[in-house]
Amino acid sequence: MEFTVQQIAGLLQGQVQGDGNATVNRLAKIEEGTPGALSFLSNAKYEPYLYTTGATAVIVSNKLELKQAVQANLILVEDPYTAFSTLLEVYQQAMAAQREGVEEPCYLGHNSSIGDRHYRGAFSYIGKNCRIGSGVHIYPHVYIGDNVTIGDNCILFAGAKVYPDTVIGNSCTLHAGAVIGSDGFGFAPQKDGSYKAIPQIGNVVLEDHVSIGANTTVDCATMGSTIIREGSKIDNLVQIAHNVEIGKHTVVAAQTGISGSSKIGNHCTIAGQVGIVGHITIADKTIIGAQSGVSKSIKETGTFIQGSPAFDYKQNLRALSVFRKLPELQKQLDELREKR
Amino acid sequence: MEFTVQQIAGLLQGQVQGDGNATVNRLAKIEEGTPGALSFLSNAKYEPYLYTTGATAVIVSNKLELKQAVQANLILVEDPYTAFSTLLEVYQQAMAAQREGVEEPCYLGHNSSIGDRHYRGAFSYIGKNCRIGSGVHIYPHVYIGDNVTIGDNCILFAGAKVYPDTVIGNSCTLHAGAVIGSDGFGFAPQKDGSYKAIPQIGNVVLEDHVSIGANTTVDCATMGSTIIREGSKIDNLVQIAHNVEIGKHTVVAAQTGISGSSKIGNHCTIAGQVGIVGHITIADKTIIGAQSGVSKSIKETGTFIQGSPAFDYKQNLRALSVFRKLPELQKQLDELREKR
Amino acid sequence: MEFTVQQIAGLLQGQVQGDGNATVNRLAKIEEGTPGALSFLSNAKYEPYLYTTGATAVIVSNKLELKQAVQANLILVEDPYTAFSTLLEVYQQAMAAQREGVEEPCYLGHNSSIGDRHYRGAFSYIGKNCRIGSGVHIYPHVYIGDNVTIGDNCILFAGAKVYPDTVIGNSCTLHAGAVIGSDGFGFAPQKDGSYKAIPQIGNVVLEDHVSIGANTTVDCATMGSTIIREGSKIDNLVQIAHNVEIGKHTVVAAQTGISGSSKIGNHCTIAGQVGIVGHITIADKTIIGAQSGVSKSIKETGTFIQGSPAFDYKQNLRALSVFRKLPELQKQLDELREKR
Repeated sequence: MEFTVQQIAGLLQGQVQGDGNATVNRLAKIEEGTPGALSFLSNAKYEPYLYTTGATAVIVSNKLELKQAVQANLILVEDPYTAFSTLLEVYQQAMAAQREGVEEPCYLGHNSSIGDRHYRGAFSYIGKNCRIGSGVHIYPHVYIGDNVTIGDNCILFAGAKVYPDTVIGNSCTLHAGAVIGSDGFGFAPQKDGSYKAIPQIGNVVLEDHVSIGANTTVDCATMGSTIIREGSKIDNLVQIAHNVEIGKHTVVAAQTGISGSSKIGNHCTIAGQVGIVGHITIADKTIIGAQSGVSKSIKETGTFIQGSPAFDYKQNLRALSVFRKLPELQKQLDELREKR
Repeated sequence: MEFTVQQIAGLLQGQVQGDGNATVNRLAKIEEGTPGALSFLSNAKYEPYLYTTGATAVIVSNKLELKQAVQANLILVEDPYTAFSTLLEVYQQAMAAQREGVEEPCYLGHNSSIGDRHYRGAFSYIGKNCRIGSGVHIYPHVYIGDNVTIGDNCILFAGAKVYPDTVIGNSCTLHAGAVIGSDGFGFAPQKDGSYKAIPQIGNVVLEDHVSIGANTTVDCATMGSTIIREGSKIDNLVQIAHNVEIGKHTVVAAQTGISGSSKIGNHCTIAGQVGIVGHITIADKTIIGAQSGVSKSIKETGTFIQGSPAFDYKQNLRALSVFRKLPELQKQLDELREKR
Repeated sequence: MEFTVQQIAGLLQGQVQGDGNATVNRLAKIEEGTPGALSFLSNAKYEPYLYTTGATAVIVSNKLELKQAVQANLILVEDPYTAFSTLLEVYQQAMAAQREGVEEPCYLGHNSSIGDRHYRGAFSYIGKNCRIGSGVHIYPHVYIGDNVTIGDNCILFAGAKVYPDTVIGNSCTLHAGAVIGSDGFGFAPQKDGSYKAIPQIGNVVLEDHVSIGANTTVDCATMGSTIIREGSKIDNLVQIAHNVEIGKHTVVAAQTGISGSSKIGNHCTIAGQVGIVGHITIADKTIIGAQSGVSKSIKETGTFIQGSPAFDYKQNLRALSVFRKLPELQKQLDELREKR
């Protein structure tokens, strides 16, 4: 797709400074701009690149005072970052709109329905008795088991796997290889030392606007539901065990694991490689630092913890700073004891 | 499926108190019971829910003395927990029994055989020269490479991947996206600083009753076999490297990694996010706490370790409790030194 | 495939001692050798097995002086390890060469091309406008999105997923379930506390000889490219976030996570379960110990760090050795304070 600088300016309600007929066909960072690219300048730190970029056009603030001559054509707007974000969205929507229709072979089970404006990739599989909304994109190798419900405008990327009885809201995204609804890890120890699987008959519920990262796993509940509430975003390779509940608008970074039956609040921020034990409750707006191990419930809203086991963030930093000096401390202590 | 309360009572050899003709069509926790649901009460802590549940029927102990009127119909049994577990199993077996037959298109390679009562989902792939037993369920997008042997009554969930030459026993379960037999991570450093892949020509052997979690990876041996012995259960997103051996009835929780050639004993319990270095041996019945890093062999049966690097569990707890107070310790030490 | 001992000796330019007409059909470790197997003896530690092995033939050094009678037929060479490695490679190349042709059904999108001597497994998917080189093996359930470029002699194992616009060089390997190009984890917080996805329009570039482990995830750049340079090897279940750059010939072990926009140097060695924060730079030849958490840039070439947070390896070891004795230290300190 190719646009003139003038067309872009029109879309963004901006003004052109330079050649409005120049054409652009892709977006690029200002420091990586080459002819044909459209960039933006928002952070003042990057202004030097404005005078050297090879981009054909750059979106800049209409308050910017140029310090040198500029090769690129400029589009002057109120807020370049917002303008560029708008552009990114329009671009992505345009790309998505192109993706419609059904590639063969693909499998649609008995008594399943899917709304209009959908894409079903080759080798995608939809089981029996599924209800799938409008504008849903189902990429190749997606597996949707029996009795699954999916709302409107969801995207299931290649090879996402949804076990039977899962309920997915509107505008959810499952990235490639994500597994929703695998059996919880529940085994009853037997008298002979072996283990017997406890049947896992619950399901997973993802509310609206939930995003699940690539190769992340969300286990079904033993009974009832594992639930991820509205707007929460889960990164890649995260493990969410059976009967976990994650509140609204909570963010969980890559490779974190949440053990069985724990309840995470709303608006929490959980960094990468965190481990959370089972059967605890984490208050709203809790922040958990990377690689932390959380072994106790967090009761106070807005707590910031770090460490394994995790405790108050600042206290942990202070303890860690002494930790490095431990050999010296021991030496000082030994000296005192000798001289006593 | 719908059953009368009387039918359920008959199956469980229990007695009905209330309406034996009332019908139930699903299982639910007592605190989440709604009309049509069958629940159970085992833990006394939950007894208050018995008097408020909306479930149509509840399985209770025949020794229970009611403290209030109960809306739900009761099924009186000796041990409600066992009775409910039985029911769960019957339910799951009934669900599984429904799953039989072959969905098209699916791929069966030259000279491969598969026993009776099997399910092969659409887009499942079985390579050449495979021997697969009876009652095996192969879900959509499962990949089974050439020369693979699989016993009876195994379940391979959607998108499980089994590399060539793998040997799988009876009653094993591979959850969605599990990878069995990927190349071990072996590279020989070259004089110019680059790496050359060491061909990995071994395989993976899973004995009977082994369970492998969703998106877990088990590498093949360089030569010989990576082995997981009878009854061991591996959770989601676990990494098991080349030439590892895991004993019988050992449990490994999510996101743990076991490095090359390490041997894990029987009846061990390894919590989540543990890392175990290569070429060590872990004794039988070892317990390893979450997020531990194990860098040395464990020789004594029944050892309980924790920490990174891991050492005795209680000793680690004591050290951690002092760790938090390190800033205070330093202050005390500084005071002593000044006053000396 | 069956070969005579004489044929193997010919290939390795070695001499037969014993029956050159005996036949072997597989490779095995000397301690696990059974009739039909070919083994090798390189490490003197394993010499006792030479006298007891059941292998039909063993490759040994032409300088070896036998201490006992040997049952097996011997192939005498200069360097048994190199000879065996050569054999492993020949074996693997022979196996690979057998794999050519197209299994149906598989999907090839409009305007995509693929070179000669390729394998495309059943249910593999190649989108539109792809350029794929010669000698490429595409296993079942592989997904290749639109506009992807792949060089010669690459192997994409079962269920590997490559998002649109990815660029892959020559001789790369993607193991089963690897995901290349999933959306970066970028969400802009909104005034109401919800998050809005930032469109991720960049791609991933893998240079030549890159290997990506099973179920590893590599996110695309927000803009520009996430890059893994020539010869780097990434193990299983690794997370590589958006806009990361990994230098040449760097090795990253299993379950490590690298956060957004960090730049890793050349010839680095990163052990398992390491976490690296975003927006930092790691110098060439850095070594990072297992389970470390790296929170700051490493500027000096050849630095060896460990710990969470990570600092100098030896210093960390010394601090850890005192850590274990903390309860004792506290007791000593308390005694001093009392006696003051």
